[in-house]
Amino acid sequence: MSDASVFYARHRETLAKAVEASRSREFWTPYPEVPSGRIYGETANADGRAAFDARLNNAFDLELPQSAGEVGEERSPYGFELGVRYPSPDTDALISHMQQAMNAWRDAGPDIRAGVCLEILERLNKRSFEIGYATMHTTGQGFAMAFQAGGPHAQDRGLEAVALAWEQMTRVASTARWIKPQGKHPALAQQKKFTVVPRGIALVVACSTFPTWNTYPGLFASLVTGNPTIIKPHAGSVLPVAITVEVAQQVLREAGFDPCLVAMAPDSAAEPVTKNLAQHPAVKLIDFTGSTEFGNWLERNCPQAQVFTEKAGVNTLIIDSTDNLKAVVRNLSFSLSLYSGQMCTTPQNIYIPRNGIDTDQGHLSFDDVAQALAEGVTKFLAKPDVAVNVLGGLQSPATAERIRQSAELGKVVLESVPVEHPDFPDARMCTPLMISVDASEREVYGEERFGPISFLVATDSTDHSIQIAREVIGEKGAITLGVYSTSDAVLEQAEALALDVKVALSCNLTGGIFVNQSAAFSDFHATGGNPAANACLTDPAFVSSRFVMVQSRHDVAPPEQE
Amino acid sequence: MSDASVFYARHRETLAKAVEASRSREFWTPYPEVPSGRIYGETANADGRAAFDARLNNAFDLELPQSAGEVGEERSPYGFELGVRYPSPDTDALISHMQQAMNAWRDAGPDIRAGVCLEILERLNKRSFEIGYATMHTTGQGFAMAFQAGGPHAQDRGLEAVALAWEQMTRVASTARWIKPQGKHPALAQQKKFTVVPRGIALVVACSTFPTWNTYPGLFASLVTGNPTIIKPHAGSVLPVAITVEVAQQVLREAGFDPCLVAMAPDSAAEPVTKNLAQHPAVKLIDFTGSTEFGNWLERNCPQAQVFTEKAGVNTLIIDSTDNLKAVVRNLSFSLSLYSGQMCTTPQNIYIPRNGIDTDQGHLSFDDVAQALAEGVTKFLAKPDVAVNVLGGLQSPATAERIRQSAELGKVVLESVPVEHPDFPDARMCTPLMISVDASEREVYGEERFGPISFLVATDSTDHSIQIAREVIGEKGAITLGVYSTSDAVLEQAEALALDVKVALSCNLTGGIFVNQSAAFSDFHATGGNPAANACLTDPAFVSSRFVMVQSRHDVAPPEQE
Repeated sequence: MSDASVFYARHRETLAKAVEASRSREFWTPYPEVPSGRIYGETANADGRAAFDARLNNAFDLELPQSAGEVGEERSPYGFELGVRYPSPDTDALISHMQQAMNAWRDAGPDIRAGVCLEILERLNKRSFEIGYATMHTTGQGFAMAFQAGGPHAQDRGLEAVALAWEQMTRVASTARWIKPQGKHPALAQQKKFTVVPRGIALVVACSTFPTWNTYPGLFASLVTGNPTIIKPHAGSVLPVAITVEVAQQVLREAGFDPCLVAMAPDSAAEPVTKNLAQHPAVKLIDFTGSTEFGNWLERNCPQAQVFTEKAGVNTLIIDSTDNLKAVVRNLSFSLSLYSGQMCTTPQNIYIPRNGIDTDQGHLSFDDVAQALAEGVTKFLAKPDVAVNVLGGLQSPATAERIRQSAELGKVVLESVPVEHPDFPDARMCTPLMISVDASEREVYGEERFGPISFLVATDSTDHSIQIAREVIGEKGAITLGVYSTSDAVLEQAEALALDVKVALSCNLTGGIFVNQSAAFSDFHATGGNPAANACLTDPAFVSSRFVMVQSRHDVAPPEQE
Repeated sequence: MSDASVFYARHRETLAKAVEASRSREFWTPYPEVPSGRIYGETANADGRAAFDARLNNAFDLELPQSAGEVGEERSPYGFELGVRYPSPDTDALISHMQQAMNAWRDAGPDIRAGVCLEILERLNKRSFEIGYATMHTTGQGFAMAFQAGGPHAQDRGLEAVALAWEQMTRVASTARWIKPQGKHPALAQQKKFTVVPRGIALVVACSTFPTWNTYPGLFASLVTGNPTIIKPHAGSVLPVAITVEVAQQVLREAGFDPCLVAMAPDSAAEPVTKNLAQHPAVKLIDFTGSTEFGNWLERNCPQAQVFTEKAGVNTLIIDSTDNLKAVVRNLSFSLSLYSGQMCTTPQNIYIPRNGIDTDQGHLSFDDVAQALAEGVTKFLAKPDVAVNVLGGLQSPATAERIRQSAELGKVVLESVPVEHPDFPDARMCTPLMISVDASEREVYGEERFGPISFLVATDSTDHSIQIAREVIGEKGAITLGVYSTSDAVLEQAEALALDVKVALSCNLTGGIFVNQSAAFSDFHATGGNPAANACLTDPAFVSSRFVMVQSRHDVAPPEQE
């Protein structure tokens, strides 16, 4: 048995469970999310940290048919240069090399490819601490989140993509005997063969804030369907991608395939390469996470490729009423603080009737609710270790600037103030900004303002909140919608709104689950049906156009007639 | 039980069989293809003909919220005006009406919608004779073919699309209890709901030659996934579409839905409406069969919609050798004659080594092979009733003109001569044209010349044939590729070619199955992977992006801990 067959045999049960979980939508994961030595090995944390440290100020070695130089300009949001230098490819040489390597990968078939992908994911899992530190010091996420979102949760999303793609690739028999009766004449008979054929070269354009979580679905969906895949990392968040590519190349080589079936094409802010790569005629699949402007450009200017995008949106909360204000405030304080609002799922607009809401503490005015939320966030972040670990750092200086500008857009309910990290004095950290505005000020809250910036929007009524949410999400999109209400009628209206604008809905979250979290195998991340994203992680549409079925047929003798 | 539920109950077994057949790829159909009174009822033919006759020179009544006038300019290729007048919609009123009607159709869910679609298909099946005559006198197909391709074979393709879409819509549980263990703490628990949500308004742009066969996949895939669907028929082939819409509206009404969930938007050659419809912001799905130029325009200029196209291609035969020349000639004579080459699957380029080929009749020169093919076609069409029924008429005067022009492009191996139809003296009919050219004359054979026009291309060798086929199909696409060879090595090369240019391959067809025929549930029609089509009838990619999944979730009490 070749290594490649061994990998499939080793992982087939996991694959079957992943397919089943993606259908039942029940809780399941093979990758433990707790960064614990008992699970990952007592020295895992120290080893991961040491591995990360060893990367700093060094050249990162990756396979490339032809290097065109070195790039590297990462700076940790915690205040230091990473100094890692990455080889950048000669693009044409890389693509031409990948095209040569593609046929062996295609001919290996769905099972072998799935086995290789699951082996890559398992080895990535074992390196979750190293990836966690790499994610922390590129994205700014606190370590616990960087470990989870950059490690096991990203691996979950990768596995989910493999499972769905494998299910779709194998739904059709690979051979068939086709026998068409002809009455009293001999039947017509043919032998047929059906082969999964990849589209071509795949490009995954990674983002700065979730360089693995948002990259693994496209990477593994394209790879398992047979497409050689180039990842173009964000210039500010290369290291987690580079480690991923290193692991993928290692497994591919062991399995007897060309390691360059997965490659990295890093660039610099000064000399971006994405547009040229995306319009290369050989590039047939593009996955992108990032700005609406560039996502729309890709959707409209790369007709040779299938383009999957996750862009900006205006995530929304509708507060109508509650029988547990304290729990609502506690839940939202975490949601608004986590990774300083730099998640594509963080709520931005919070619609509250200007006449206030009914609560278990009596009827509260708009200002009372605003005050309760502001105090909730302040109290939640009062403990310095909670603050630094939950908030993390601002990935980009542009976000810090945006916070400053946004403070002038309305009445400041909660000021954004600097936060000091005990270990990293130069870290770029601050508390969330909350602004209250009137519903009439659509120009303020009607678009995404990325970062720890939320708008408490005073509306005429919950009906009005729903109407505005419908308009803003209809126009700008959203990935998350939350509602708080004690009224079944309002919850039904929110359900109808969610269906109409095609956004995932979270109702009355007051416990340990947050509107900005989505669990692989159960929660669909984005729907692909509103302007925030044209694709969903992960539904059949995300995987099924990454390959085509090619058949051959020939006549055979008909069966004997009875 | 509502009518809608009755329909699902009545057809659920057929639906399950269709899903199973689409996976096994074995022969299956619920719609008999033989136009026999024993199957369809002794008076079915006469009734169908009478129904067709009754349409002539009359207004065709269809539901529309607001009519903007009447159109109708169909002329039978058999030489008479149909004189049918169709209501044309006020587009904005229609779309706005459809948007209102959509939610009830969405909320009915996949099972109910599938039941309605299967009831529509069953009633269409019962009207196959009427549809057959309508197809004959719009497309020019001989009646037997018009019955089969316009009736049961089109219904098969419609059912196949329903089955695949239903399978994809129902692969996910509609509700789930999600329970995430938290070690010694109480689990996190949520109740979740998953709803299939349609994209929006669907547009199907039908073609003149196969107004139902090429329309039903898009129509039924969009409709069953919840999208109200507008069919824009070709101005020359409206009647088969109109009958389809009539039946769909009837069933929708009986099931308690708005009949205008399916509507027709006919236009005229002088005032086409397709571009405006296709760019309407509410139109989210477009299916198109027709020219490469317009298909490419749709793919590039309707960013608000998912666009599925079948365009032109250069279908190809590679003749290397045979041990049964007579059977090859017999098989190809039919393929080249059927419906006067007006199928998107008819071979156009026939590559033959200029030094000839080995056969069971000894080594034959290029000219010998050309002569054998020409004589085969001539002999096959010698019987007048075979000629008129197999050839049918030329759908468009442009095709007749193209034949005349093409005769000047090379050496005429078989002249195209007029054919007289005993019943229709004004029918536009002729025999196929065969031209021989040298492989160097790429400008002659390197693009589609639609109609009964084939090129015998003299190549240096079979290797050269394969190389040219790779280049031409790579650049222009193809839906079919055929090969004749007694060499396993050549057949393997042809398989490799088929995978590389992503085209369906037929090997050594010498019996009753022809390269231009594809059977629903077993043969994939086009792959979506070369320039001839960006979509395939029918794979998961064809159906899965027509809907999105919208979820809602709320916390529930965790289960008691053990």
